[in-house]
Formats: sequence, structure tokens, C-alpha cells
Amino acid sequence: MLKYRKIPDETIRRMPRYLRAFSLLGQKDQVFISSQQLADQLHLNPPQIRKDLSYFGDFGTRGVGYPVTATAQKIREILKLDVAQKAALIGAGQLGTAIAAYPGFSLFGFNIAAIFDNSPAKIGKKIAGLSIQDVTLLSTIKDQNIHLAILAIPADAAQACADILIQSGVKGMLNLSPCWLKVPRRVKVVSIDLAMELGTLPYYL
Amino acid sequence: MLKYRKIPDETIRRMPRYLRAFSLLGQKDQVFISSQQLADQLHLNPPQIRKDLSYFGDFGTRGVGYPVTATAQKIREILKLDVAQKAALIGAGQLGTAIAAYPGFSLFGFNIAAIFDNSPAKIGKKIAGLSIQDVTLLSTIKDQNIHLAILAIPADAAQACADILIQSGVKGMLNLSPCWLKVPRRVKVVSIDLAMELGTLPYYL
Repeated sequence: MLKYRKIPDETIRRMPRYLRAFSLLGQKDQVFISSQQLADQLHLNPPQIRKDLSYFGDFGTRGVGYPVTATAQKIREILKLDVAQKAALIGAGQLGTAIAAYPGFSLFGFNIAAIFDNSPAKIGKKIAGLSIQDVTLLSTIKDQNIHLAILAIPADAAQACADILIQSGVKGMLNLSPCWLKVPRRVKVVSIDLAMELGTLPYYL
Repeated sequence: MLKYRKIPDETIRRMPRYLRAFSLLGQKDQVFISSQQLADQLHLNPPQIRKDLSYFGDFGTRGVGYPVTATAQKIREILKLDVAQKAALIGAGQLGTAIAAYPGFSLFGFNIAAIFDNSPAKIGKKIAGLSIQDVTLLSTIKDQNIHLAILAIPADAAQACADILIQSGVKGMLNLSPCWLKVPRRVKVVSIDLAMELGTLPYYL
């Protein structure tokens, strides 16, 4: 594991966007990309991209650009996505089922390793090749080296579930329940409420 | 429609978070909230909240806080969420079906008014009380006063679909396909790739 200097949160937030762009370019066999081309694609500005990528070291070449494959690999290392990352999915309703089937996770090295629900009608059924487990067994993730969780459950169940996850070793959560979670400072939560995201758009109509 | 001075994009991005918080507090019959309490709940800092809310006018009271119901209503007006906003949903797969059923949209005044898909097996079936329409009829949204769309379709179909939507009068899109959309400057797109959002978390493990 390489050591890097402290990278600002805002840069880390943009890194997965770069990684997706570099990965998709690599799949199309593009060898180099300039910060200008990348900026056009990602709706960012070139100096910001150059500054962000400079945290990894100085390996873009003036007039040529960034080597696509090597940069993707470097970003994977920084984001710790160069090793497979296991995630638990909580909630096997419609949204959870959609997430379990979502093909985009593999690009980032994620692997949904366990699925939980509280509905007797769902427990034992399989989605995405995994048996849905009883949510009362949630703390068993402790023994499975799972440190990430995706919450796709109703808002009123989310906090209690988050508390158990944290006690069981989860350190990062993607929260799709429309609520804020209270978590210790060492735990990182990304919350996405699709309605709230849509909420900014009418202003611009 | 009230006129306000130009509000920064970053503030607009946070407004729906405030609106959700004020709305939920209102449902619990809380009458006032201080910027400090709000900051604790939203993991923001009080001066930023005060600055953001000051764009609406100066109606918080020192030592008392913001009036919950009036502030929620003011934010709705600014975000143009005080009138019902119709949205078209493109894609009736697992994610689209989950979105159609998502109860969170009503809090923001959104109303999914039309659903489209390209699968003959789905066209004509009903989800969330709406018949799924043939995506070849997408341009009919022009006659329905729909200016918002939610894209829940595979990445390779997203750009073509976005182009038709824009020609048909859509000015804001929530894009859940894992790709960047090229759109004219006047069209606003919020893109969410769930895998990409999860992608920042392992760095902090």
C-alpha cells in the first residue's frame, strides 16, 4: 500500500468520477487523455482536474495527457479499490433488488457479499445469487470481513440498523433511506435521497 | 412568484436538505429550530446555514430560531416546489419500478406523471397506477407540460433518450444511468451513479 499526502475530501469525492472516466476510456483502448478532454466529459475545469490528479504524483505529460490505464490503476490504489471490497446490502425490497442487480458496482471492485431483510416472505429467497438472510443475524457480518453497507430500507428502521452495522464493524455506509443517520465521527456516510436530488431542478426550469 | 437575488448553485444544492428537515420537523409539530440544532441534524455548520437561509430574507429570530412552517413554505417557493411538478420516468426495470414506488417524492411536490419503457413485455402493464407507455411515444410529453425526467435505463440508451426528452421540452433530468450526458447549457442534469457514490468510502476505511 503506497502512502500519499493527505487529500482533501472534495478531491476524494471527485476521484471516483475520474476513475469511471479512465476505466471506460481504457475499455475503448484510448491510451492518453488530456485534462481538457477529461474536463469536457466530466463538466469540470482543467486546472481543477490537474490539481486533483497532482495529489497522486506528477505523471501526466504536457501536450500528451494522462496515461489512461496507469492513471486508473493509481486512482484504484488511492481509493483502496484495487482490492475487492465486500458490502452488505440491507433491504431486499424493490430498491434493494435493483441495487443487487446493478452492474455498475464491479467497475469499482465492489462485491455485494450478503443481503438482509426483515420480511419472512423474503428471507431464504435468492437475489443476485445470494440468499436473503434474516436481519436479526446482521451482526454476523463481523465474521465476514465486511466493512461497507448499503441501506435500502424505510427511514424509520434505518438508524437502528446503522447502529448494529457500526457495532459489527461497518465503517462506511451508502444510505438510500430518506433520513439523516447519527454515526460516530470515524464512520463515513454518503446519503442519497433521490427525491431530494430531484428537488434542485425545478429552480432552474 | 416572488423575485429573489441570484442564489449560488451550492446554496441551491443544499436547499432541498433544509426543506426536508423543516418539513419533517413540521410534521412533528416543532414550531422553531435554531441554526445550531439544524446544523447538528444536517452535519453542516451554523454560519453556513444562516448564510444560505439569508438569501430568502431575514426572518429567523435571534435566540428563537427559524419558524418551521413558514421557512419550509419559503424554501418551497424559491425552489418552485410550491406547485406540483410533473416528472416522466424512463425505464420500468427494477430501478424504475423502485422509483415509481418511492414515497419520498411527494414531500417535494413531485408527481410521476408518465412512465416509458422499450420492452414489449412491459408496455401496457401498470406500475404505481400508471400504464407503462412505449418509449417511441416519448415526445408526447410535450403536450403534457412535463419538464422533468428521471432516467433509469442502461447507459448505452441514455444519450439518445436524453436528446428526445430535451427536444420534447424537458429542462431538468435526474440521470441514474452510469454515464455522462451531453446536454445544452440551458438543461440541468443531476447524475447519480450508486457505485460511484460508494466508491469514495473505502478510502476512509
